[in-house]
Amino acid sequence: MQAEIITIGDEILIGQIVDTNSVYLSKALNKIGISVYQITSIQDTKEHILEAFENANKRAQVVLVTGGLGPTKDDVTKHAICHYFEDILVQDKQVLNHIEELFKKYISTPISDMNRQQAMVPSKANVLKNTYGTAPGLWLEKNGTVFVSMPGVPFEMKGIMEEEVLPRLMRAFERPYIAHRTVNTYGLGESAIAERIAEWENKLPVDIKLAYLPSLGKVRLRLSSIGTDEAKLHANLQNQVEQLYSLIGDIIQGEEEEGVIEAKIGAQLKAKGFTLATAESFTGGRLAELITAIPGASNYFKGSVVSYATETKIKVLGVAAELIEKHSVVSEAVAIAMARQVKELIGTDFSIATTGNAGPSKGDSNEEVGTVFIAIGSPNGISAHKFNFGSPRERVVEKAVGKAFQLLQKEILNF
Amino acid sequence: MQAEIITIGDEILIGQIVDTNSVYLSKALNKIGISVYQITSIQDTKEHILEAFENANKRAQVVLVTGGLGPTKDDVTKHAICHYFEDILVQDKQVLNHIEELFKKYISTPISDMNRQQAMVPSKANVLKNTYGTAPGLWLEKNGTVFVSMPGVPFEMKGIMEEEVLPRLMRAFERPYIAHRTVNTYGLGESAIAERIAEWENKLPVDIKLAYLPSLGKVRLRLSSIGTDEAKLHANLQNQVEQLYSLIGDIIQGEEEEGVIEAKIGAQLKAKGFTLATAESFTGGRLAELITAIPGASNYFKGSVVSYATETKIKVLGVAAELIEKHSVVSEAVAIAMARQVKELIGTDFSIATTGNAGPSKGDSNEEVGTVFIAIGSPNGISAHKFNFGSPRERVVEKAVGKAFQLLQKEILNF
Repeated sequence: MQAEIITIGDEILIGQIVDTNSVYLSKALNKIGISVYQITSIQDTKEHILEAFENANKRAQVVLVTGGLGPTKDDVTKHAICHYFEDILVQDKQVLNHIEELFKKYISTPISDMNRQQAMVPSKANVLKNTYGTAPGLWLEKNGTVFVSMPGVPFEMKGIMEEEVLPRLMRAFERPYIAHRTVNTYGLGESAIAERIAEWENKLPVDIKLAYLPSLGKVRLRLSSIGTDEAKLHANLQNQVEQLYSLIGDIIQGEEEEGVIEAKIGAQLKAKGFTLATAESFTGGRLAELITAIPGASNYFKGSVVSYATETKIKVLGVAAELIEKHSVVSEAVAIAMARQVKELIGTDFSIATTGNAGPSKGDSNEEVGTVFIAIGSPNGISAHKFNFGSPRERVVEKAVGKAFQLLQKEILNF
Repeated sequence: MQAEIITIGDEILIGQIVDTNSVYLSKALNKIGISVYQITSIQDTKEHILEAFENANKRAQVVLVTGGLGPTKDDVTKHAICHYFEDILVQDKQVLNHIEELFKKYISTPISDMNRQQAMVPSKANVLKNTYGTAPGLWLEKNGTVFVSMPGVPFEMKGIMEEEVLPRLMRAFERPYIAHRTVNTYGLGESAIAERIAEWENKLPVDIKLAYLPSLGKVRLRLSSIGTDEAKLHANLQNQVEQLYSLIGDIIQGEEEEGVIEAKIGAQLKAKGFTLATAESFTGGRLAELITAIPGASNYFKGSVVSYATETKIKVLGVAAELIEKHSVVSEAVAIAMARQVKELIGTDFSIATTGNAGPSKGDSNEEVGTVFIAIGSPNGISAHKFNFGSPRERVVEKAVGKAFQLLQKEILNF
């Protein structure tokens, strides 16, 4: 049971946008037991669309297509579909009514012929309602392969997937179960880990696949399996994960499926009734943004002072000007003062403070580019840590944010 | 002159990561006049890699491959390459020395045989130095098509591209120039725009391609062209963009190539010597993060108070408790107070304040989910604006952030 995803649009091929639709679609298909064999991003031309359809038909039973369904001339997908399925466009009354309603309700400009043309659909297609937009989804079949065409606007595409496509796929196909377990490790490189688990890896059952996913400062180990017995599938993976813990438990810090680290921190804070604030310099609000992206963060997160300028550290946080003068703004002393002040100012149990020189230029400090201080405030006091995360700027911020959450999590576990 | 990008790794096909490597590679190739015909994401199996190589060879003169070069067993790209190019692996002394140096300098664990195996490369390959990692890039040719294989870790891949691949491609191929101009429009849907510019669009020269890129609240119009005469290319696009301005100048707000709106705001603030602060509730630091991601933001951005909890609005910003009590925390009055207080507290010329109910639950207010107040502080005073951005939460935050920057920009233009 294999699927292929085809995303249509030059904006992907010139690097103007990031193709997040594929990420959503891959996840959604995996969840209902359908593996994605390939993701193909192609130009918005009839020839290329037809070539991609032909190739996908050979490989996959389900082909999900996004993009190219707009009302304007550059969108040719509907015509390519008619060619491929030897079909013609006919007007769909229900779609027309829906478009007219959308215009009445939400759009100030009058409806035009071009808008009405969105109701023209291939006669052989099952039409899938697009609650949030004018271009409907289309479900067609050829040589036993299902083709689903959807608009490229992410929230319209997601609406059609959830309301129409996923329920239909679940009815149309017998599907196995797919399960993944991803263990996060810190502190060792992938080859060092591979050596420690070599014997176990060699004995892994053939239906369990292991992948190493190295990224900044951590290596994730993913175990994947497909099967028809869901309970057995999970039990087998659980058994292997337990063996992993017994081999490299010292470097494992939780699992990805439990959620990102800021979600885990949130759950721990909430369970223990603790609160958190942040004081951010070069991280510029990134910590606060990640924390508040977790549903229910208002239960434990009180706020952040993004003291980007040195004067804001003095004026808002109340860090002593003399302290900054003496130690420089990128220093352990200032990080500690920031963590202490924000904890007191906002009145929380825990705090994170960051100050550093993320580059490209040296800024208000003499520290080397990449130098970062992170301080963690807790009911026990303040601790500070120095790092050099190199360059470029985005990498320094990303590494610092990850490290700050790890340090905070460690501290919370003491309570 | 066409290229294809192949990204290898199950993590892309199960939706575990976003494929940002392709975005970088597409942009980098476009800049030197190489069009990307297709991006293909495939599984980490020998069969699938060989199939993708075969297909790409038919279509493209340059094939850039990322991923699958790690030292562990799940990475099979090097073996697939040997099969495809009928080659064997041999040890490369320079790569071995580089790996040994990296270990000496940066890695605490001792070097192992598995690490040394990273120095085994196909004998026919030109080896490309990976300054930031142990897996070198590989440059091979078959039937007149260049294949370049690089590791999937983004900063290692980028290093190899910039130091090795791009200079070689520029020497190896005669390339045309590719130019894009993207105009941002606000306030009209794509079909309404298409009708207003229909006559112009019909007369566009065949070598200029127009694309409509609708997204939340705006439609971008992209003009693309390829040619050998760079000056003429730009002049032709300039001519068409001017015609666009004369047709729909009322809805155009600048061009994408000028940079994102927060960069434009930054340039305007800097030019006029003004400073900025933000007070953020439901946007949770997102405004500050985007502002500080612009190089040189410290020239005008002083900081932000992320007053996520109501009590933080009172304690840190000094908004009167009675005002919140009377109007509720999601109200015009509170947005105005936040913008005024943060401007005074941090001492800036301009400020942005956000308060709203982004959902999913109603939070500390009685306002409907999606209701948002944005206030802009300027040397002239404070203005406030009410919106409903619907759901889900991420969309509300994204729309509010975009709108806040637009409102601020409008205000700055008054000075």
